[in-house]
Amino acid sequence: MDNQVFSALLSQARKQHPLVHHITNYVTVNDCANITICAGGAPVMADAAEEAGEMASLSGSLVLNIGTLNAGIIKSMLLAGKAANNHKIPIILDPVGVGATRLRTESCRRLLDELTVAIVKGNAGEIGVLAGADAKVRGVDSAGLKGDPVAVARTFARDTGITVVMSGATDIITDGERVLLVENGHSLMGTISGTGCMATSVTGVCAAVSKDRVMAAATALAAFGLAGERAAEKSRGPGSFKPALFDEMAALTPADILTGARIKSS
Amino acid sequence: MDNQVFSALLSQARKQHPLVHHITNYVTVNDCANITICAGGAPVMADAAEEAGEMASLSGSLVLNIGTLNAGIIKSMLLAGKAANNHKIPIILDPVGVGATRLRTESCRRLLDELTVAIVKGNAGEIGVLAGADAKVRGVDSAGLKGDPVAVARTFARDTGITVVMSGATDIITDGERVLLVENGHSLMGTISGTGCMATSVTGVCAAVSKDRVMAAATALAAFGLAGERAAEKSRGPGSFKPALFDEMAALTPADILTGARIKSS
Amino acid sequence: MDNQVFSALLSQARKQHPLVHHITNYVTVNDCANITICAGGAPVMADAAEEAGEMASLSGSLVLNIGTLNAGIIKSMLLAGKAANNHKIPIILDPVGVGATRLRTESCRRLLDELTVAIVKGNAGEIGVLAGADAKVRGVDSAGLKGDPVAVARTFARDTGITVVMSGATDIITDGERVLLVENGHSLMGTISGTGCMATSVTGVCAAVSKDRVMAAATALAAFGLAGERAAEKSRGPGSFKPALFDEMAALTPADILTGARIKSS
Repeated sequence: MDNQVFSALLSQARKQHPLVHHITNYVTVNDCANITICAGGAPVMADAAEEAGEMASLSGSLVLNIGTLNAGIIKSMLLAGKAANNHKIPIILDPVGVGATRLRTESCRRLLDELTVAIVKGNAGEIGVLAGADAKVRGVDSAGLKGDPVAVARTFARDTGITVVMSGATDIITDGERVLLVENGHSLMGTISGTGCMATSVTGVCAAVSKDRVMAAATALAAFGLAGERAAEKSRGPGSFKPALFDEMAALTPADILTGARIKSS
Repeated sequence: MDNQVFSALLSQARKQHPLVHHITNYVTVNDCANITICAGGAPVMADAAEEAGEMASLSGSLVLNIGTLNAGIIKSMLLAGKAANNHKIPIILDPVGVGATRLRTESCRRLLDELTVAIVKGNAGEIGVLAGADAKVRGVDSAGLKGDPVAVARTFARDTGITVVMSGATDIITDGERVLLVENGHSLMGTISGTGCMATSVTGVCAAVSKDRVMAAATALAAFGLAGERAAEKSRGPGSFKPALFDEMAALTPADILTGARIKSS
Repeated sequence: MDNQVFSALLSQARKQHPLVHHITNYVTVNDCANITICAGGAPVMADAAEEAGEMASLSGSLVLNIGTLNAGIIKSMLLAGKAANNHKIPIILDPVGVGATRLRTESCRRLLDELTVAIVKGNAGEIGVLAGADAKVRGVDSAGLKGDPVAVARTFARDTGITVVMSGATDIITDGERVLLVENGHSLMGTISGTGCMATSVTGVCAAVSKDRVMAAATALAAFGLAGERAAEKSRGPGSFKPALFDEMAALTPADILTGARIKSS
């Protein structure tokens, strides 16, 4: 594809510096904050029921990540989500580990039922579980999806009106009509905790500055994947890869997207 | 100024290795723990109401950081704070994002009303909000303070008896009488999450070993800023800057403070 | 000792890729997740009462770390622990800061009373407190144990049937009969927050693939210590040490254990 639109979208994110409100897990929250800054946004994390809605209404987008959820967190997600919906602020949902436990599955269904979610981003197992496909999740990792992943994602998007991002070696992004495939990324990204969550945060940055969910998500995944590719060249392993990933995400320019994004229509 | 007193204060921190109890946010808590060690202290984080007071009473200082607060955290902060006050242990408050939501503003007022706080450290927006000045906070970032920041900080300190640290390109430290300006620091410090919180933790280390709050805060900010300057020289971006910041803070000697601290009286 | 068994055990961990469920503190949780991956496991953190038991029953081992505990966490630990016991899944307990506050001491006693714990891993002060010896803990650090540490650990193990790991310059591992001493490690490991917690996570990975608790713990401590030694060679201080530690843990091969593990019988 012509990468001009993705390049312009990253440029816009850097210019607008949107506030990205997160209600997320305590495992990777610091990584989410830092990658949000590197991508051009301003992260804020506020999960108390008393302020979650107020903070969401002030933000450019709302990231909901269920990595370490509990009843209180779900309540805050619903309050923040409703405030976001009222203010037309896009919600990006990362259904971490959905399918692994009843709590995760039921909580995701409730979030999807009660909120208008703009983008849902998960691995093949997670998206498969949400879509009702034959899919498995082990802990927080995908343990397989039977069937054609593009078809599963596309049908789920079409049925729900949500833009779906199924992350993997090739990321699949679809609103039910358009399907984009993003081929940026590096295997080292799978060797650290938090790259999935970080990709969602970067998606939050991009979704805050564009109403085109598919283009926003593709920009985010391509930019983050490209940063991963460059970081891998400078790393000796997963430990040195993480700081390098932040360095490269921060250094990534719209011009880099022009030449380096590998996005194609399916 | 003659840097001898700041140098001696850092030396004292390294010798006494004070226990610094934190009730803080889950976003940057790991950074706070590590910078406390690098500065010479021993961090402990214990926020359950059942033990917050007991742990505080055993500590050299108490750091209260409202980055991700909720009703339970505030209760624990009050319990820990009262125990600290009873034992004459200094409290350092970081009012993260005060002004952004009602919960943050009301919680800070309650902490300031019910506890004797030794030092409050925030950005210009946060200190401005607390001081009742014309100030704004966006998420957890300062969005401007109208008026002379030194005058705002000084009046707030004089009115409350609290030593005020207003962080920025030049940090302002005042007890209402004395005003010190710290010019150490580097712009890369603003590109990662947690440098504000870390500066507060280092202030906790220094306040644990000196009753002179202004000198303790100035030592902390100069030392941390100097570590930031040195780390910046060894960094390729925000990702590599953070490990370098810990390296440099740990390597910083009292002799480095003698030659490198840039602190002046206003 | 012949390092063949330790080498084979690490090899087994890498092959089985066990799910290691953690209910742990929010200070070092990200480090625990990443070191689990580097050691060969798949980390999952789920501490809500609604899912803790379900997640534990799906896992290869359960790590309970009381670094930042509260009433809700203890409840989840008991639920997860009972599920683990029912499914014969080994529990590894890290009694962080036990002895520093009543909450920590009482919570540990309750966990040890109500659950069948496979391995308990703490510093000399923590194990001493649990054993009823003359020991002190300051914050989360050992502040001394009077008497012979090997004797304290051995008696505690014999009395309880729990495999005891007392970490230190030399790690002591005993089931009451056998005593192994692990001499791998580096002083830089004491300069960052989280190495104790990470050692427990690596122990969780190894305990998931071997019923011999002593051998599993010795493998974990030797491997992690060896990674620390190698990381130290590539570090300029505590900040650069941490990424290097992950790099070296991930790069460590069974062959490295053969030549580098320094484990002896006492």
